[in-house]
Amino acid sequence: MTIEAKFRRLGTENAPGQEVRQDMDGIGPLLRGDPLPGRAVDYSHGDVDAHPPAPGAFDLFAAGVAAGGAQAYTEYRGDAAIRALLAPRLAAFTGAPVDAAEGLILTPGTQGALFLAVAATLARGDRVAIVQPDYFANRKLAGFLEAEVFPVRLDHHGAQAGQAGIDLDQLEKAFRSGVRVFLFSNPNNPAGVVFSPAETGAIAALALRYGVTVIVDELYARLRYGGVDYTHLRALMPPEAPVITIIGPSKTESLSGYRLGAAFGQPALIARMERLQAIVSLRAPGYGQAVLRGWFDEPAGWMEARIRAHQVIRDDLLRVLRGAGDIAVRTPQAGSYLFPRLPPLAVDPGDFVRILRHQAGVTVTPGTEFSPDAGDSVRLNFSQDHEAAVAAVERMVALVARYRA
Amino acid sequence: MTIEAKFRRLGTENAPGQEVRQDMDGIGPLLRGDPLPGRAVDYSHGDVDAHPPAPGAFDLFAAGVAAGGAQAYTEYRGDAAIRALLAPRLAAFTGAPVDAAEGLILTPGTQGALFLAVAATLARGDRVAIVQPDYFANRKLAGFLEAEVFPVRLDHHGAQAGQAGIDLDQLEKAFRSGVRVFLFSNPNNPAGVVFSPAETGAIAALALRYGVTVIVDELYARLRYGGVDYTHLRALMPPEAPVITIIGPSKTESLSGYRLGAAFGQPALIARMERLQAIVSLRAPGYGQAVLRGWFDEPAGWMEARIRAHQVIRDDLLRVLRGAGDIAVRTPQAGSYLFPRLPPLAVDPGDFVRILRHQAGVTVTPGTEFSPDAGDSVRLNFSQDHEAAVAAVERMVALVARYRA
Repeated sequence: MTIEAKFRRLGTENAPGQEVRQDMDGIGPLLRGDPLPGRAVDYSHGDVDAHPPAPGAFDLFAAGVAAGGAQAYTEYRGDAAIRALLAPRLAAFTGAPVDAAEGLILTPGTQGALFLAVAATLARGDRVAIVQPDYFANRKLAGFLEAEVFPVRLDHHGAQAGQAGIDLDQLEKAFRSGVRVFLFSNPNNPAGVVFSPAETGAIAALALRYGVTVIVDELYARLRYGGVDYTHLRALMPPEAPVITIIGPSKTESLSGYRLGAAFGQPALIARMERLQAIVSLRAPGYGQAVLRGWFDEPAGWMEARIRAHQVIRDDLLRVLRGAGDIAVRTPQAGSYLFPRLPPLAVDPGDFVRILRHQAGVTVTPGTEFSPDAGDSVRLNFSQDHEAAVAAVERMVALVARYRA
Repeated sequence: MTIEAKFRRLGTENAPGQEVRQDMDGIGPLLRGDPLPGRAVDYSHGDVDAHPPAPGAFDLFAAGVAAGGAQAYTEYRGDAAIRALLAPRLAAFTGAPVDAAEGLILTPGTQGALFLAVAATLARGDRVAIVQPDYFANRKLAGFLEAEVFPVRLDHHGAQAGQAGIDLDQLEKAFRSGVRVFLFSNPNNPAGVVFSPAETGAIAALALRYGVTVIVDELYARLRYGGVDYTHLRALMPPEAPVITIIGPSKTESLSGYRLGAAFGQPALIARMERLQAIVSLRAPGYGQAVLRGWFDEPAGWMEARIRAHQVIRDDLLRVLRGAGDIAVRTPQAGSYLFPRLPPLAVDPGDFVRILRHQAGVTVTPGTEFSPDAGDSVRLNFSQDHEAAVAAVERMVALVARYRA
């Protein structure tokens, strides 16, 4: 594959955060009615002004700068003392040991961890199973590495209560056909569903039976509503199994501006990831790594308050969306995403997303970023100012009605 | 190529900064004499405690944090206002226009810029010309991308005064044989030589004639001694030529702990790099980007003082090394690296590097990281405490004498 062909598959025109680069050419003739006034809301990512960074982060950063060279130049896999602090916390959180010296790497954001994990396990032509819908970068990563994607359906709308809705028959078929790596997010991004203990157990059993490497993106695993039962896949696998778990403080903890993430699991894979990090970015930002000293050690009650704040926004937005009558949306069990399915519209879904931004100041991410079959859906990150978020979804519902087919 | 084979080529055992992971097994029987006491010096990277970060960096970071969400979530290519600030400064520095909107990307360190530039221009099987010796990651990047390396000799020891010593005949042969990309550092890392105006002019002419994409790593281009004549390749090329220039504030400005870099040049290539950054790390650390507001805008006299401080260390180390009689070392015209060639030793060069660390507390980087032909050389980053650096090189010279063949 030529370099030109490779990059044609890596479009970012609709990627979250890139909307300012979109052009609005040709949108004029499609418009119906007047603009809807109101405070603009960018649902493509969370609003860290409305939900500020976990307390103490900046002071820890300042202490990192004061520590000087030792904090600026860490091992590529990250500062040894910080890894030693984090490993038991990550072990307690996930229910299985974490090897601070050999089994943990700090990365520039969870995106960095994801890239390293995927690029350390997939060679050209290898088969990878990817859930649809799932995080938008997953398919792009496979495309960049020239791996062959085997899609696995997640029927989040149709699933039984308490199930995420993964098609386990399709997953086994994928594994049987020679898939080498299974990559998925849990809680799912964009649908906010959590894999049930039975689903996670089945994935673990299949991965073991077929010798498949599993990469689990648990970025939203701390932001869970109403006591949902969450099972960490790694706790169900033997310690030596090829499993990599990824998490970071960018979302629930609002620390995205520091660009930090972590991956932990099989030492051989972590070692490969470090070799790759050496030529990709050297290390997670040195001073920033110091911020992780406070991670999984927030003040008592802080996380509960953050979850409550998101739950009320979630519930209000669900009420507005469901009030429309023809918008289907499942209640997310975790995370801060809604992934409503819109009714048939008179305009192309991509144009509707542009119209929504142009006429109502509402930025959402088109469903096609997450699955080729989800063109009728849009993703909203509801980690926003409460009042502004409700008003913006009301405008969205109004425009859905206006543009209905 | 399998993923295992791919990663076998990516060793980091001897990479700068990873020495703490080296084992000292089997070194006992090789040792001669007693340890040499003295303050340990890690020449694998600069000492930012001895040469502190450019003034104002931390305050700019703090202002970035205070700015909140807008600074945390920038476009993938970096904050538009900061790019608008930097573009004219980079244009003034390099002598050719920089397009803030379409021709500049901010990255996690210059390593991030280098990875993106190389991965955005080389597909599997493409040919890339790489100077030997040159920055250790260059060959590894080509290996990871399964590109074919065409080495180009840099005879820095034998070159005429004022020349870096690149073999231009070999370069043309490489270009004629179908090389697609030429990647090199100027000033050269590890040798500290600067390409003469005539050499840079010849490279520009050859690249144009053969349609070769050029990636120039100018990381050390601000730290130049004694008015050396530096020519930016991009200033010799038409504005639409496929040239990417890379620079960052990690070295001369001691800002490595913030992980910042920049690449600028042909918009089509910058666009590809951004698409790739979207799946590799999303963006350069958001708050960190704010530090770049002070870049190329340091207080009057600050850069001159930094250069003087390095020049006196350089000159003292050269005197000690040359005093040994059988160590060959060229005077670097820029940067903070020395790349001395040691006499034949009774131990393997890799073992000598371990012995040096074990017996003398002196960490250097083996020459083989930079060229397969440079096993007899070691690299020293002399951006260190002046007194400690001189004492450590004296210990190194003593051990060279002790282990001479």
